[in-house]
Amino acid sequence: MVTQLDHEVVTSTRSKLSNQVHQYTFDSLPLQRGGQFGPVTVAYETWGKLNIGGDNAILITHALTGNSHAHDAERPDDTKVAWWNPLIGPGRFFDTSRYFVICSNILGGCYGSTGPSSLDPDTGQPYGMRFPVITIRDMVEAQRRLIEHLGVRQIAMVAGGSIGGQQALEWAVAYPELVQKAIVVAATAALTAQAIAFSEVGRQAILADPRWQGGDYLPGQGPNAGLSIARMLAMITYQSEEGMELRFARQPARQQNVTTPSGFTDLSERFDIEGYLYYQGQSLVKRFDANSYLYISRAMDLYDVSEGYSSIEEALSRLRSKALFIGIRSDFLFPAARVRWLAEQVQAAGGDAIYAELDSPHGHDAFLKEWKQMTDALNLIKE
Amino acid sequence: MVTQLDHEVVTSTRSKLSNQVHQYTFDSLPLQRGGQFGPVTVAYETWGKLNIGGDNAILITHALTGNSHAHDAERPDDTKVAWWNPLIGPGRFFDTSRYFVICSNILGGCYGSTGPSSLDPDTGQPYGMRFPVITIRDMVEAQRRLIEHLGVRQIAMVAGGSIGGQQALEWAVAYPELVQKAIVVAATAALTAQAIAFSEVGRQAILADPRWQGGDYLPGQGPNAGLSIARMLAMITYQSEEGMELRFARQPARQQNVTTPSGFTDLSERFDIEGYLYYQGQSLVKRFDANSYLYISRAMDLYDVSEGYSSIEEALSRLRSKALFIGIRSDFLFPAARVRWLAEQVQAAGGDAIYAELDSPHGHDAFLKEWKQMTDALNLIKE
Repeated sequence: MVTQLDHEVVTSTRSKLSNQVHQYTFDSLPLQRGGQFGPVTVAYETWGKLNIGGDNAILITHALTGNSHAHDAERPDDTKVAWWNPLIGPGRFFDTSRYFVICSNILGGCYGSTGPSSLDPDTGQPYGMRFPVITIRDMVEAQRRLIEHLGVRQIAMVAGGSIGGQQALEWAVAYPELVQKAIVVAATAALTAQAIAFSEVGRQAILADPRWQGGDYLPGQGPNAGLSIARMLAMITYQSEEGMELRFARQPARQQNVTTPSGFTDLSERFDIEGYLYYQGQSLVKRFDANSYLYISRAMDLYDVSEGYSSIEEALSRLRSKALFIGIRSDFLFPAARVRWLAEQVQAAGGDAIYAELDSPHGHDAFLKEWKQMTDALNLIKE
Repeated sequence: MVTQLDHEVVTSTRSKLSNQVHQYTFDSLPLQRGGQFGPVTVAYETWGKLNIGGDNAILITHALTGNSHAHDAERPDDTKVAWWNPLIGPGRFFDTSRYFVICSNILGGCYGSTGPSSLDPDTGQPYGMRFPVITIRDMVEAQRRLIEHLGVRQIAMVAGGSIGGQQALEWAVAYPELVQKAIVVAATAALTAQAIAFSEVGRQAILADPRWQGGDYLPGQGPNAGLSIARMLAMITYQSEEGMELRFARQPARQQNVTTPSGFTDLSERFDIEGYLYYQGQSLVKRFDANSYLYISRAMDLYDVSEGYSSIEEALSRLRSKALFIGIRSDFLFPAARVRWLAEQVQAAGGDAIYAELDSPHGHDAFLKEWKQMTDALNLIKE
């Protein structure tokens, strides 16, 4: 039972989580690309109670710069304080009155789980770039240790979007016997060349920032300009041309006073989209570690559901869970057509897969915005 | 006549143009955003002969990092040595046996025309960021001075793609009486918020590079990492998801030895798309000035055909030329739907506009690759 465990509370001011974050530490994790890594700490939050059979658990997996705070029990109706708040809670789709809902910070993250900013016990210094290359599989393995520790014997549902969707898919493929339902939102079998390319441009902006220092920057003295630029670019890929036209078009900037990542003044009048992106860059820098960004974004690029199998068919034929795939019409990072294709491949491999599409102009980020459509889509897998 | 003029040959080793580049210098140019700027030199090349009436001129306008070398008279069948080579020459669409074809380096450029890397006569130092903000209109004005100097009285055709297309459009709107036919390829009435956003991310990468030095870097010691990163991003936007999947997909890198912009080694195995983009970044750094990149890309963002008019209808109703608009199915920087919309607006304003679309997976760059389709589309405006 969760209440019997010896939990430590994460006190990071960075994460500013209002509810309790627990941590579980284990000695060592075998990595997909070889070798062992440890010790590994996983930070997590839970809502609801695990039943005696240990089979009412829901695992929620977060996106790139997310954290374990998928739901806020104190402010359940505030959509800003927790990233999937409207979907989680008593009576909601992820029903905390019936299920034991778990969300953990991913391996490589900077919200309490072991990542590049964690101290290497061998040196007493942050790992920096001595952190190993990690994969989606490794993230799933760390989660598996956590749920076993929590007494979970069956995952009733695993659900996430973007890199969270990659993890949900990987769970269903790697541990078919443990997963009853898998919900893969805005994620595909593998990233496109274009998506890898966007990702690498952002990473190069971080690496080229002299404050990156080979990854050995001091806390608070990291590559802020580089990380801001990476975030600006990522924010473009999380939205869509259509959505940006609706919201910004060619309007002059409302945010005239936000500093540019480079610190240089504007070449001419500022557009609204520019002020918005500067602000988004600044915001991320205050809350996220640049090295974590490098490692986690790379794990997204490296993910290919067929890795380790003879074919994608072999990989997908492993699924035993009911699977719901949700695409977003205007998503160009994980195009809807590729999400649909994945669902069709699962069906072709004999799996029980449903495909639903959000008709939204908000691009990739729609899974964090379109609460009504998300709930409608999720309900397709309810029974 | 062009042969009677006192021409200077550009000896820049950077541009490596095999044919003769001429220069014309005039004292001063009134700028759209106010003030006068000068002296202004315009570098240009010509092919064919101007007739006595001065009405057989074709003005070709180049893209962002292009130059006046649209055609190579010595190697007319080599598609690599001149950017629109297959479309220009005796018997080709831009027929140098019948027309006097002119292509000039744009104002703000670094291939012989006055730009930020030119020496400010007042200080003897490069302008750097003391160069004024320039617009598409200013580029057109500089071209107008050039063609008047060359004795041109009527432009039989003005044609270009991307920022070259913006110039072709601006020519038709600003000087309707001078332009008989306008060919606007992969260009729209104004950039989308998304396109401005991509553009600004690239500029921030340049500005954040400590070697940028507020724009006062020494020749050859500029912000190579920043400009490389900007180019990597731009290359993504010049192609398409579809084209990149066809060419690169998730293949391992063929170019393992190309250095990354940041100079840091890869976090894990390199994808082919990454090696390709590093190479493209490196290549641009060798041939292009970072400050020119800032100014010219900003001119693209700022362009709005309706600027200075009460409405886009008023602007477009000025056209007297026959106009051909060419969109590209897979272009997401200047989406085909927006090129088509522009053509329809010209028609609605009473203009003689044709729309054609290249059915190409190559994205924005298709106008520099799809020679057969380009020729077919151009032929629509032949008579």
